[in-house]
Amino acid sequence: MGWLPEPVKRTIIAMLITYRTAILPEWVDYNGHLRDAFYLLIFSYATDALMDRIGLDEAGRARCGHTLYTLECHLNYLAEVMLDVEVEVRTQLLAHDRKRLQVYHGLYRHGEEQLLAANEQMLMNIDRSARRSAPFDEQVLSRVNTLQETQRDLLWPTHVGRVIGLPGAAGQGGSGGRA
Amino acid sequence: MGWLPEPVKRTIIAMLITYRTAILPEWVDYNGHLRDAFYLLIFSYATDALMDRIGLDEAGRARCGHTLYTLECHLNYLAEVMLDVEVEVRTQLLAHDRKRLQVYHGLYRHGEEQLLAANEQMLMNIDRSARRSAPFDEQVLSRVNTLQETQRDLLWPTHVGRVIGLPGAAGQGGSGGRA
Repeated sequence: MGWLPEPVKRTIIAMLITYRTAILPEWVDYNGHLRDAFYLLIFSYATDALMDRIGLDEAGRARCGHTLYTLECHLNYLAEVMLDVEVEVRTQLLAHDRKRLQVYHGLYRHGEEQLLAANEQMLMNIDRSARRSAPFDEQVLSRVNTLQETQRDLLWPTHVGRVIGLPGAAGQGGSGGRA
Repeated sequence: MGWLPEPVKRTIIAMLITYRTAILPEWVDYNGHLRDAFYLLIFSYATDALMDRIGLDEAGRARCGHTLYTLECHLNYLAEVMLDVEVEVRTQLLAHDRKRLQVYHGLYRHGEEQLLAANEQMLMNIDRSARRSAPFDEQVLSRVNTLQETQRDLLWPTHVGRVIGLPGAAGQGGSGGRA
């Protein structure tokens, strides 16, 4: 990343690149671009990578009997993405409590600075045998705390806490982007 | 739908069943349930069916040169969905203006009343050659108005206009569900 200015470089490192892929043919729709649902698939794989990072990879899930479920998510589509484009997901842990992670993923062309899409997710720690929520395993929580500390200087992203709506209708308006 | 009470039956009809599918093996993740992104794929196919309904099927897109892009969406995961389960999407046009549709999709087991997931989408009408937003084609707008009129008595769904957040953090809390 030697070609990037220092503050951008530091932000990218703190943001944690969790996933990188080329856009696959089966993800492209009749509009000739990445279908809305496959942006979320890329973000979903990024969450899997985040789980690896905090000790909830396959071995960790077997060890502590926990996993994460998605409770809720929000996506903003800011640019079309075409076949074969190399993209990466940069991830920020926004907040957490005993059972939940609030996570932000930004989609970028590999190594570039234009935000293509933004995704906010609320994830719940689940005891797999009880199939219900449970406090994080101690080793996992320790890693979550470490990650949160690493990212504590990052600004809150623009596309967080958004409400969908048309001006004058029940929502708050301002939906913008494309996919 | 003879087994359903009359108000429920009327709501389902007004809600417009846009898509029906069984949960496919390739949509199931390491948790043994429908992966978060594939809920959105099902909702995305439901939007395709809605496009057919308003005259933006393949022939309509060719005729008027328009299509829809997704600007923004929000999902609430309320229940796990397992392999082979038959689900259906019930769709409500919440609002529209000259260029945009605000759409709500609810995911249900086929013919049942428990809401499994909710998805709100903001869609933008796009001129395909200019690759930018444009007012709806007149025939399309006429069909949109007809659909809106058909659904005018439907209540605003619970999972609309939501904000993600942890209590005490920057959001507003109340994220609930599972996927």
